Amino acid sequence: MTKHAGQEPPVPEEDLKRFFKKDVFCNYVGIELKEVFDGRAKAELEIREEHLNGIRIVHGGVIYTLADLAFAAAANSKGRVAVAANASVSFLKSPKGHRLIAEAWEVSSSRTLASYTVHVSDETGELLAVVQGLAYRRPEKIVEVFDRA
Amino acid sequence: MTKHAGQEPPVPEEDLKRFFKKDVFCNYVGIELKEVFDGRAKAELEIREEHLNGIRIVHGGVIYTLADLAFAAAANSKGRVAVAANASVSFLKSPKGHRLIAEAWEVSSSRTLASYTVHVSDETGELLAVVQGLAYRRPEKIVEVFDRA
Amino acid sequence: MTKHAGQEPPVPEEDLKRFFKKDVFCNYVGIELKEVFDGRAKAELEIREEHLNGIRIVHGGVIYTLADLAFAAAANSKGRVAVAANASVSFLKSPKGHRLIAEAWEVSSSRTLASYTVHVSDETGELLAVVQGLAYRRPEKIVEVFDRA
Amino acid sequence: MTKHAGQEPPVPEEDLKRFFKKDVFCNYVGIELKEVFDGRAKAELEIREEHLNGIRIVHGGVIYTLADLAFAAAANSKGRVAVAANASVSFLKSPKGHRLIAEAWEVSSSRTLASYTVHVSDETGELLAVVQGLAYRRPEKIVEVFDRA
Repeated sequence: MTKHAGQEPPVPEEDLKRFFKKDVFCNYVGIELKEVFDGRAKAELEIREEHLNGIRIVHGGVIYTLADLAFAAAANSKGRVAVAANASVSFLKSPKGHRLIAEAWEVSSSRTLASYTVHVSDETGELLAVVQGLAYRRPEKIVEVFDRA
Repeated sequence: MTKHAGQEPPVPEEDLKRFFKKDVFCNYVGIELKEVFDGRAKAELEIREEHLNGIRIVHGGVIYTLADLAFAAAANSKGRVAVAANASVSFLKSPKGHRLIAEAWEVSSSRTLASYTVHVSDETGELLAVVQGLAYRRPEKIVEVFDRA
Repeated sequence: MTKHAGQEPPVPEEDLKRFFKKDVFCNYVGIELKEVFDGRAKAELEIREEHLNGIRIVHGGVIYTLADLAFAAAANSKGRVAVAANASVSFLKSPKGHRLIAEAWEVSSSRTLASYTVHVSDETGELLAVVQGLAYRRPEKIVEVFDRA
Repeated sequence: MTKHAGQEPPVPEEDLKRFFKKDVFCNYVGIELKEVFDGRAKAELEIREEHLNGIRIVHGGVIYTLADLAFAAAANSKGRVAVAANASVSFLKSPKGHRLIAEAWEVSSSRTLASYTVHVSDETGELLAVVQGLAYRRPEKIVEVFDRA
């Protein structure tokens, strides 16, 4: 996807999905990683009662957490461990549908920093939030961390 | 706290706490609003198994959600309804303690926009994340929305 | 471009360019608006000695100012006045070329808030910075403000 | 200022000021670094005709550039080279005065990342913009880079 993509062989999708299945908080919230490969990822959530805030709309924390999983999966799909350093979220609309979808893609990647855009929509296609994520790459390979976790 | 603070009488703390008790997602995650008055708020969380991510550290979504409640409470404490328009989160350290504390305060407020800073720490005083939140004020009074919700 | 795009007839490109020619600071810095229409804009800059910082690379303020013009032009191209409320800039690489190009496009637009992405590259196509901009729409029409300024 | 502050002796203020005097763009814009020491910095600007935008208010790029210098000076005052990775700017009000003042301070610092807050005000004390800056620390010492530049 970018010039640095080839530094490490991309991690197989099944391995990445198996690793992110260990994300306890995402499981607790009901978020599922649907796709992840070579700098891109897609996560989904069925809206349930426990996702609402005090005025009965989906909580900003739910929208952020969904985006965060897609961002983390995309950022860690290239072989080296990446951790979120900064995320800027713009909240644009309230969902009208019943399902939330986050799609993340890499816009730039260097040796130490990589930038991702995440769009969160509902199933009607309405864009609800945009996240700009900046990840910091660590020297470890992702497969080593998988094995330890 | 700022020049616009006096436009409406600040909402009594007990009313604000009662309203934010209706925040279903924060209840589900185990977040409690401890203090809220006149542009400031404090929220807390005991770290539990369900808050962890795949590498067994507190999930970024948990840290964001805790900060979001403090931000929302601070922003809505002045009388007029405020909704989050943008939040920028910098993730600085992983928690070493057992409890997370978010403290939010207003840094500026005009008729339509207001800016908040949130610091998320653990109980050892270590700063884990900083959030810069921008809220958009709507014409409705907060007490009217409280009654409807 | 988005559902709200049609609320007002888009402003003719020549009118928008004529208006942004009055931007004194962009003229001083040497930034030129090349294209602007219906939620998109492109601005350019030839790198000169006065754009450098203390370590002889292009100043972050120059990159931001270039992105800001593209963001402002895109946000004001739809008929209603829009002002920047928030911008988050990720600095990814230092330019290797001699010219900087900022391209802005609208990713979402509602009655009061609109979101823009800006990519700043050099002429070799290397992506140097990504900006996520959030604009707040005011009730005035852009042509009225043009006439006053 | 933070636990990592002591890792290197802080750089003398006169050395930092002398280095930032080489910032060509800040000189061109008329920005002056007034104070810088141990994670804090203050920069100022007299508002002139060339700082205005098309509607005759101070350009967002000027406000950002002023904040960026204070951020950079604060981030580089501790001994190790720091480069801006992300900056989130909230624009709150238009200046009523004739002078702009940016004050930056470190809120957190670890081995690789450090976080800064910058407040930009006019001389009446009105807060105009808030910047949250995230810097990435490189292994080089700042004095080595000073000597090369």
